[in-house]
Amino acid sequence: MHDLVAELYPICRSITGNGVRQTLGILERHIPVATFEVPSGTSVYDWTVPKEWNIRDAYVKSSRGERVIDFHECNLHVLNYSTPVRAKLTLEELRPHLFSAPEHPAWIPYRTSYYKEAWGFCLSQDQLSRLDEDEYEVCIDSELTDGHLTYGECFLPGETADEILVSCHVCHPSLCNDNLSGISVAVFLAKELLTRERRYSYRFLFIPGTIGAIAWLARNEAAAARIRHGLVLTCVGDAGGFHYKKSRRGDAEIDRAVAHVLRHQNDPYEIQEFSPYGYDERQFCSPGFDLPVGCLMRSVWGQFPQYHTSADDLSFVLPAALAASLHTCLDVVDVLEHNRTYRNTNPYCEPALGRRGLYRTTGGPGIGDENLARLWVLNLADGRHTLLDIADRAGMNFMLIHRVASELTEHGLLQDAAARGAPVS
Amino acid sequence: MHDLVAELYPICRSITGNGVRQTLGILERHIPVATFEVPSGTSVYDWTVPKEWNIRDAYVKSSRGERVIDFHECNLHVLNYSTPVRAKLTLEELRPHLFSAPEHPAWIPYRTSYYKEAWGFCLSQDQLSRLDEDEYEVCIDSELTDGHLTYGECFLPGETADEILVSCHVCHPSLCNDNLSGISVAVFLAKELLTRERRYSYRFLFIPGTIGAIAWLARNEAAAARIRHGLVLTCVGDAGGFHYKKSRRGDAEIDRAVAHVLRHQNDPYEIQEFSPYGYDERQFCSPGFDLPVGCLMRSVWGQFPQYHTSADDLSFVLPAALAASLHTCLDVVDVLEHNRTYRNTNPYCEPALGRRGLYRTTGGPGIGDENLARLWVLNLADGRHTLLDIADRAGMNFMLIHRVASELTEHGLLQDAAARGAPVS
Amino acid sequence: MHDLVAELYPICRSITGNGVRQTLGILERHIPVATFEVPSGTSVYDWTVPKEWNIRDAYVKSSRGERVIDFHECNLHVLNYSTPVRAKLTLEELRPHLFSAPEHPAWIPYRTSYYKEAWGFCLSQDQLSRLDEDEYEVCIDSELTDGHLTYGECFLPGETADEILVSCHVCHPSLCNDNLSGISVAVFLAKELLTRERRYSYRFLFIPGTIGAIAWLARNEAAAARIRHGLVLTCVGDAGGFHYKKSRRGDAEIDRAVAHVLRHQNDPYEIQEFSPYGYDERQFCSPGFDLPVGCLMRSVWGQFPQYHTSADDLSFVLPAALAASLHTCLDVVDVLEHNRTYRNTNPYCEPALGRRGLYRTTGGPGIGDENLARLWVLNLADGRHTLLDIADRAGMNFMLIHRVASELTEHGLLQDAAARGAPVS
Repeated sequence: MHDLVAELYPICRSITGNGVRQTLGILERHIPVATFEVPSGTSVYDWTVPKEWNIRDAYVKSSRGERVIDFHECNLHVLNYSTPVRAKLTLEELRPHLFSAPEHPAWIPYRTSYYKEAWGFCLSQDQLSRLDEDEYEVCIDSELTDGHLTYGECFLPGETADEILVSCHVCHPSLCNDNLSGISVAVFLAKELLTRERRYSYRFLFIPGTIGAIAWLARNEAAAARIRHGLVLTCVGDAGGFHYKKSRRGDAEIDRAVAHVLRHQNDPYEIQEFSPYGYDERQFCSPGFDLPVGCLMRSVWGQFPQYHTSADDLSFVLPAALAASLHTCLDVVDVLEHNRTYRNTNPYCEPALGRRGLYRTTGGPGIGDENLARLWVLNLADGRHTLLDIADRAGMNFMLIHRVASELTEHGLLQDAAARGAPVS
Repeated sequence: MHDLVAELYPICRSITGNGVRQTLGILERHIPVATFEVPSGTSVYDWTVPKEWNIRDAYVKSSRGERVIDFHECNLHVLNYSTPVRAKLTLEELRPHLFSAPEHPAWIPYRTSYYKEAWGFCLSQDQLSRLDEDEYEVCIDSELTDGHLTYGECFLPGETADEILVSCHVCHPSLCNDNLSGISVAVFLAKELLTRERRYSYRFLFIPGTIGAIAWLARNEAAAARIRHGLVLTCVGDAGGFHYKKSRRGDAEIDRAVAHVLRHQNDPYEIQEFSPYGYDERQFCSPGFDLPVGCLMRSVWGQFPQYHTSADDLSFVLPAALAASLHTCLDVVDVLEHNRTYRNTNPYCEPALGRRGLYRTTGGPGIGDENLARLWVLNLADGRHTLLDIADRAGMNFMLIHRVASELTEHGLLQDAAARGAPVS
Repeated sequence: MHDLVAELYPICRSITGNGVRQTLGILERHIPVATFEVPSGTSVYDWTVPKEWNIRDAYVKSSRGERVIDFHECNLHVLNYSTPVRAKLTLEELRPHLFSAPEHPAWIPYRTSYYKEAWGFCLSQDQLSRLDEDEYEVCIDSELTDGHLTYGECFLPGETADEILVSCHVCHPSLCNDNLSGISVAVFLAKELLTRERRYSYRFLFIPGTIGAIAWLARNEAAAARIRHGLVLTCVGDAGGFHYKKSRRGDAEIDRAVAHVLRHQNDPYEIQEFSPYGYDERQFCSPGFDLPVGCLMRSVWGQFPQYHTSADDLSFVLPAALAASLHTCLDVVDVLEHNRTYRNTNPYCEPALGRRGLYRTTGGPGIGDENLARLWVLNLADGRHTLLDIADRAGMNFMLIHRVASELTEHGLLQDAAARGAPVS
């Protein structure tokens, strides 16, 4: 996964333009990705798809002809979505167009101006303080033209039309944790799910932040209505512990599934309440949709110093962290896929498990986890408790509960509650 | 406010009699107060309005003709509601009629005997121990006659007939915190509200404790049914932190509004569960009414040593504490007045706030409180959340939430949920 | 109660056989016990009543003719439900049939093999290590034949057909805390209730663990449907603090009643969540029944070292602990018997209690517990709160709340809510 991050790293992405197309092209080598183009000027709810932005070059040259700021060195140097400019300016005239982050003097900050036409350069504080009084040649060779907003979808059909959504933004340029880590984990999650039987259908979105999510929702209301669970993936490659931000509902199955998986991992983690600021869960959880979509992160955006700076680079994202994030996503998928409701076919008293080889035969103190898990499942399989309800009440791992439920079903002691009428009692 | 307390301090009030009339007369100089008279013998629910009590003089004279206990020195000296008496008694015969508080030897305790005919004197332990064997001339020049129970009402009509009740007792004689502080804050609260536009109508009651509340409720069942929120004000003038005792319901809007205001004041405070003992919330919260009426105090009755003694005097009540209590009441009123339910007119995805000048335009980490407040309001304005719900879930001050809600309404992004049909989703 | 434990101690009980009959015979001297016999081979839900087991003798003799393990010394020495055996075996051949508990070398462990035919001996680790290489004569003079499963019932009819169940197992041989303490407390509880007026009917079950409960339920579905509250009693004789394991429902009246009683005892105690492993609450709380049956213990099975060993003997069970357990059960019964719902006949404002001698007459700070309890009852007696609800909300002892409720009823201020229509408000 780190290789994919590295391959995507140099590309200058934005909310529109060839950077996104190039990115989707690389993803297509791993999984089937359908690319969609939405024309500039299209109305999407309260918004309008903006002009397409592309950039070839940008620099600030000293009077000695030296590129003191050079887009080709790092694409963060240009204020993302800068309008084209060619001018000669004194340092004084240039200053209002320069952005630095004095608290981290060696890092280039990342800034954007999507919806207000502006131009500018981002540079490290060190670079800024080295700039002398001079006449500078300023060039931003960009264009803002009627074009398209581009996004990608990878759809994996399952047994049912009910969908699980995995969404990540693809609009950040050379930033690894905030952007590329989510993309990479999503791609490898899709790759793994391609090989599996799926109860749910899965829809992976690779979309520009905010406007991309809004455009997708505006054009896919029917698909949105089929979303049963969803995850926004971002900042999942750094060394920090997991942070899961709950959906607006707060008690959705996805919220409980992620909390269950993290609780049983024995690593520090934190569950955060929903707030309407953050990533595209803002749109999925807007009141008209109110979809059960949470956001899985390791370190939280804005709370690690490297966030939105050039220090969010390839060294900040660790292969082991990416792998564990993928593993966590798969565990969550396992819970969602297997979280069914069963009915005990012998609801009056315990069934005779020993006779079926499902219980120890010599009485003594204590029983093993498997035996106890069987008793929990049989006790709560009344058509009203899901396996996740049972696992949480028993304080046991979902997969153990699922395994004994399958075994009890094979022995005829359990049946899928959906198969027959009313609850047991 | 302290001046009003000082003006009311010398008057000998009780649950009936001229002390209450005199008190209401003084209040009328500040706000419109209607005075009501309920004849002795009137049945009010399970109770009967008692005879009216008035007192001119009371003393205990030594054989040397010296007034060793003198009502004119402090009206607490007489057991409130004492029957008339004129007698010569030895100290031994007098003792059963003397009440002191040995734990605070310099203070005169306050005692009453409203519903059992009795007479007596209250005096400091120091005074009591100075009494020698002697023949004492005892005089209580009081009368208990068929008369009236007196109470006052200040009614401020608002846009709607729904009422906010503010109630305080006016039956305590020279006691400042427990009685006069509540009266004074209520008067100045009414005075301020007189000058404002009011969604709610306001009813201020100046009533004798228990029997006054019972008489008012018995005669005003229709008005009681219009009470949407209510506060009993008492002990709001001392230096202690706020204590709010919740209504019987425990989750009424008044309970949440006061808790919100106190939480955002950054001073120590305490929320207490309802209990059926205390002030007139006992009657307002009786099961037949079950009104949403809580009780706002600073120090809690019975928990400060000066309570019901002569030490609850003018020096115990501080102008700054009275002012902060008034301020707190006004903040609570602000919450109640503005706590409406809105509906986002663009419930699908966020509206484009930047276009309307309601969002920062250059991307960077973090957004200000105002921006975040707007997102919270838009996200939860689904016709099911009040602004107080939103403020509490966002952990933000109600007035900020209210301000951005008004602004969003002006921009057409929000509308009053009462104006149109069903919730958003 | 300790004498009864001592009398029952020597008997070799099992899930069937004469040990149970003998035990029930002794109980009959204290309370009326009806004995029921269920034939071997009877189907009870998913189970079949097993063959009846009886044993006369069992030993292992050394070649010198010495009984190195002797059933008559301690009936724990034989693996309970051992099939008959007569053989000569080397120590090597004997070993797989020997069970010891190395962590407590002086104690004989208790083992059973009810549902898998096997034979064996239990012995202390000390005994085991003294066994030399030898040819041993092994004899288990038991029989497993078509017979019956035996259980006892003591039914005490009450004013209503609604039942309170008290259940304890009678299948353990010489084990005092785990078995005999529960039996003894149940017997003396029944004995005491025999002398009282009872709103509820009471059913005491003396049944073999698991199969006995299953057999009883299978044959008594109608009676089971009448169970309103139930307790499984076990391990109630040792010196440990109380542990109450809640019913599957978790918020049943029995759960709240036991928690209330323990909370007001001022001794350490613990409330445990339901789990589907333990005693016969496993069957009563199976999903088809889901009866409100909890389990009262002192030390918890499996968590005290003496559990299921010869150290759970007469010295491990204390007369004072048995007495306090009985007392606790009676307190719980008192709560259940008296936990009614009342309606205040004067719901508008407080009634005039002073006039009726139910309130102090001279005003002063504070009121006593009785006065406060009266106010709580009157305030919450709205036809929706039980006395237990009131006691818990007031933080007061149920019996005080019950006493003042009775007194208020006598004064006509309260009436049973069942007597008339809808709630007060």
